[in-house]
Amino acid sequence: MLEDLADIGRDPGTGGYVRDAWSPADMRLREWFADQAARRGLDLREDRNGNLWAWWGDPSRRPGVVTGSHLDSVRQGGAFDGPLGVVSAFAALDLLRSRGFVPGRPLGVACFTDEEGARFGVPCMGSRLLTGVLDPGRALALTDDAGDTLADVLSRAGRKPEELGADPETLGHVGVFVELHIEQGRGLVDLGAPVGVASAIWPHGRWRFDFRGQANHAGTTRLEDRDDPMLAYAAKVLAAREAAVRHGVVATFGKVRVSPNNANAIPGLVTGWLDARGPGEREVRALVAELAEGAEVREESWTPVVDFDLGLRERVARAAGRGLGVEVPALPTGAGHDAGILASAGVPSAMLFVRNPTGISHSPDEHAERSDCEAGVTALAAALEELTR
Amino acid sequence: MLEDLADIGRDPGTGGYVRDAWSPADMRLREWFADQAARRGLDLREDRNGNLWAWWGDPSRRPGVVTGSHLDSVRQGGAFDGPLGVVSAFAALDLLRSRGFVPGRPLGVACFTDEEGARFGVPCMGSRLLTGVLDPGRALALTDDAGDTLADVLSRAGRKPEELGADPETLGHVGVFVELHIEQGRGLVDLGAPVGVASAIWPHGRWRFDFRGQANHAGTTRLEDRDDPMLAYAAKVLAAREAAVRHGVVATFGKVRVSPNNANAIPGLVTGWLDARGPGEREVRALVAELAEGAEVREESWTPVVDFDLGLRERVARAAGRGLGVEVPALPTGAGHDAGILASAGVPSAMLFVRNPTGISHSPDEHAERSDCEAGVTALAAALEELTR
Repeated sequence: MLEDLADIGRDPGTGGYVRDAWSPADMRLREWFADQAARRGLDLREDRNGNLWAWWGDPSRRPGVVTGSHLDSVRQGGAFDGPLGVVSAFAALDLLRSRGFVPGRPLGVACFTDEEGARFGVPCMGSRLLTGVLDPGRALALTDDAGDTLADVLSRAGRKPEELGADPETLGHVGVFVELHIEQGRGLVDLGAPVGVASAIWPHGRWRFDFRGQANHAGTTRLEDRDDPMLAYAAKVLAAREAAVRHGVVATFGKVRVSPNNANAIPGLVTGWLDARGPGEREVRALVAELAEGAEVREESWTPVVDFDLGLRERVARAAGRGLGVEVPALPTGAGHDAGILASAGVPSAMLFVRNPTGISHSPDEHAERSDCEAGVTALAAALEELTR
Repeated sequence: MLEDLADIGRDPGTGGYVRDAWSPADMRLREWFADQAARRGLDLREDRNGNLWAWWGDPSRRPGVVTGSHLDSVRQGGAFDGPLGVVSAFAALDLLRSRGFVPGRPLGVACFTDEEGARFGVPCMGSRLLTGVLDPGRALALTDDAGDTLADVLSRAGRKPEELGADPETLGHVGVFVELHIEQGRGLVDLGAPVGVASAIWPHGRWRFDFRGQANHAGTTRLEDRDDPMLAYAAKVLAAREAAVRHGVVATFGKVRVSPNNANAIPGLVTGWLDARGPGEREVRALVAELAEGAEVREESWTPVVDFDLGLRERVARAAGRGLGVEVPALPTGAGHDAGILASAGVPSAMLFVRNPTGISHSPDEHAERSDCEAGVTALAAALEELTR
């Protein structure tokens, strides 16, 4: 099924994917999801926040077991981050049906909207709105690079912006959530395992640093008369790496915006975004406090540590291990996921990771071996069988 | 007259000007120029490269004295860089006529196209094409941010791209060129003079540095597994400043492009543009060679030193000094100008600078006092009177 999606939103120059939420590429992906649901006779629903649900059985009678992920992408991302979880959900359902299995409770496949936040800057938008942790008014006012608000974009897509927000009815249909995802590091490679389960999601956040100076002519302004914010930005980038090593966390300046961004002008403003994560909240907070000293900083997001339910995680790992015939280890991750948002909202949630041979993700070079993807489907099917019995 | 132009291409958010060549703002500025020529009974011509000429007298019979500058702007630039020279040219002509002066040879006002290179990246496009130092094929293939080539843009503006290129006939009309410009540093402030003449234009160039790494997830990639090009870029920015101090030149990274430029992704590629200039070519070359060591660098432009004709410069300074009743000092500049391109092509050329109280240019904060602008017009009129006698 991943092959069906191979051409959607692909940049022919780089081979990377650009699949912003509600873009033409995203609309095609949503149609693909609806088509897959129809082929399997599943009941398709789009909730008030644009998340898609394909149900086998009626969850309004009894909360079901849901699996799935997202179909949008970071810009210039790979083929697996998101789609692997959705494709594996349908494949696991097919595998269960091929064995004649009939679930003892409703089984759903979910596709969350705008998990990556590539367009409006807020990741896990669909699940944050659903669970009520993101205020719909704030979300609707967010703007994309073209200056359009989410409200504009939703209206153009034929959706109702005024209906956005916490949706306890839809959330109540989800008794358990299991998200399968490509691993985004080298944990499973080092452990020699094709599949693992998530123990925790590291606490993580995003901070915007504004460095202000005086825009001026690059040729005629003496060095001693300059107030060049690019120098302050550069020093902060290097300081962030040095401090990350010291605090045992990861820190990244991956996005920068320069004004006016002319080769012959000293900038007036350089804005850089710091992404910082680590095993413990205290270390991440200490890093940010250190870098923020004397700087103009705004916290754009902060997600506390998510410890996945230990009983559920062990049940999923045991079922998956039986299905595969190998040990399924548990490991933490530095990446945020919709499963983390749902877990924080009190929905028992678990994650399965599929081995990534290079650890590379958020890049056109992201890859997973076919045999490991198949192991992921086997593991997921075993977990769903266990949870819906 | 500057007030006539105050609203054209102005960004209401910043107060800065965005006047890209051939943009709607530029077309309005060109109409304004034509209107000013018509009001004064001047003969308007647009040459093959889009430069505008307003003639008092027929330069095909005898080469004339030309003054003027440009009307386009860097993005988020000020009101004076360019327009002051064009407005002062018309004002000086008015001043001469009000005194009943009749020139002994043709007198022209010029407006060069795309001096700043804000849209296509090549500064002094109009004068470089006119003099033949820029190949028209290369120019026509240049693209703007929207991906349109100069050829596309010219066609849409109703111009003939196939006619672009060296134009010895038009150039032959220019016996002498005098460009008035706001100073872009604090040289005249330090000397306590309202007006100065240019002694030389520093050698200057632009180099593109590509820093390649491995795009990856900012949360899940261990520090030791990273190949983050933002770190190499940051180190180069700081090295450039340190080396500039040591070599006695100026060096600036004012423009940067990051791919994919996502807050949660380690970049795969960071491209930074180095602008370097100084009194001597040897020092600038030494700086660039030092910074280029081990880096992926491409020279995008290089302009050797321009020493303005000593006899002409002294004649202009003496006439201007007589007109003002104060000394008109000579000083070099780090900024490129159409007058430098014409001088390099063998046209006797000179420049007058008007004091800039802060030295700030290429910024909405660029400013000149009204009394200094009037001194500029007086000085320019005196110079034109001397040169057309």
